[in-house]
Amino acid sequence: MTEEEINARHAEKMAKKKAARDRMIATKTLEKGLLIVHTGKGKGKSTAALGMVMRGIGHGFKVGIVQFVKGKWETGERVVLERFSDQVTINTMGEGFTWETQDRQRDIAAARAAWDQAVSLIRNPDYKMVLLDELNIVLRYDYLPLEEVLEVLRSKPEDTHVIVTGRNAKDELLEIADLVTEMTMVKHPFRDGVKAQAGIEF
Amino acid sequence: MTEEEINARHAEKMAKKKAARDRMIATKTLEKGLLIVHTGKGKGKSTAALGMVMRGIGHGFKVGIVQFVKGKWETGERVVLERFSDQVTINTMGEGFTWETQDRQRDIAAARAAWDQAVSLIRNPDYKMVLLDELNIVLRYDYLPLEEVLEVLRSKPEDTHVIVTGRNAKDELLEIADLVTEMTMVKHPFRDGVKAQAGIEF
Repeated sequence: MTEEEINARHAEKMAKKKAARDRMIATKTLEKGLLIVHTGKGKGKSTAALGMVMRGIGHGFKVGIVQFVKGKWETGERVVLERFSDQVTINTMGEGFTWETQDRQRDIAAARAAWDQAVSLIRNPDYKMVLLDELNIVLRYDYLPLEEVLEVLRSKPEDTHVIVTGRNAKDELLEIADLVTEMTMVKHPFRDGVKAQAGIEF
Repeated sequence: MTEEEINARHAEKMAKKKAARDRMIATKTLEKGLLIVHTGKGKGKSTAALGMVMRGIGHGFKVGIVQFVKGKWETGERVVLERFSDQVTINTMGEGFTWETQDRQRDIAAARAAWDQAVSLIRNPDYKMVLLDELNIVLRYDYLPLEEVLEVLRSKPEDTHVIVTGRNAKDELLEIADLVTEMTMVKHPFRDGVKAQAGIEF
């Protein structure tokens, strides 16, 4: 094939793709607040949620963040989010990763306090986006009654986006979610002795 | 089991987990710039990269962004990134998604111009993080010679992080990457007629 033939064939193929895509997009007309879940063992669950938060801020949303574990969102994120403190509310009720505390009763109390904050942010119509970071870990350890959490998420205001992160998301949560992405680890530098680094992990 | 027994068993289990984790972390001592790839058909590839960019900004890094397709990073992201214009350089050399243009020669020229920008950002030691958004699409269509791209990535400055996004990452790229995450779509609201929305898709 000559270069001209390649180009012509490409143009034809792309025109077909574009037509198919335009038809598909024309059927998508609904606008509504989504329940979004980022799960899986890979990296990027909280990081992609942070990206959504930044986008939301760019659109002028008020955004609420509740961290269900400590030791995250402490450094790089915080500096940036503080620049938008008129739009962002951060609650850090977590008391540390569960394997750090070894105190189940304290973890349950911390989860409950964080959840109370989450409920009031979700039900406040001023907040267009609420991030429940690592809620899945809390649910996995049964620190909160699953049905109570699901009920709040099911009855969230129509146009509020709620993002839930953490590995091992419960099936019942995936069932009521609108958008679920699984982050899968394909390759990780920890294998080669590289430590957690600024800008990447925190 | 009584509540006390549950708590005691939990404390023991968590203490073991913590010890294992501490031992693991103690072996991770290297610090180096990573070649990071976000691929897969799911959402969150560019969004997680944006999250990393925000973290990097929070740590005071200078960050370079090259977009290999247009129509992204145009709205929510841009408002936020512009607040940090002293730290962020954005190059938007893309001429639109490939299925929009249907002009292969123009796409190749745009890819080349974007790549030239990418090379100069990667080789500039002032930039501690460089995001090559949707470079994988360009490589997939063979708009740039793969070996030329790999060679630049292989010889990047030791402490620069480079993030490459886009579905269908080439195997040769995954091979030289330090950190690869695949985003898998589990559930997507497009299925139910929900359209792309502010804060979520853009």
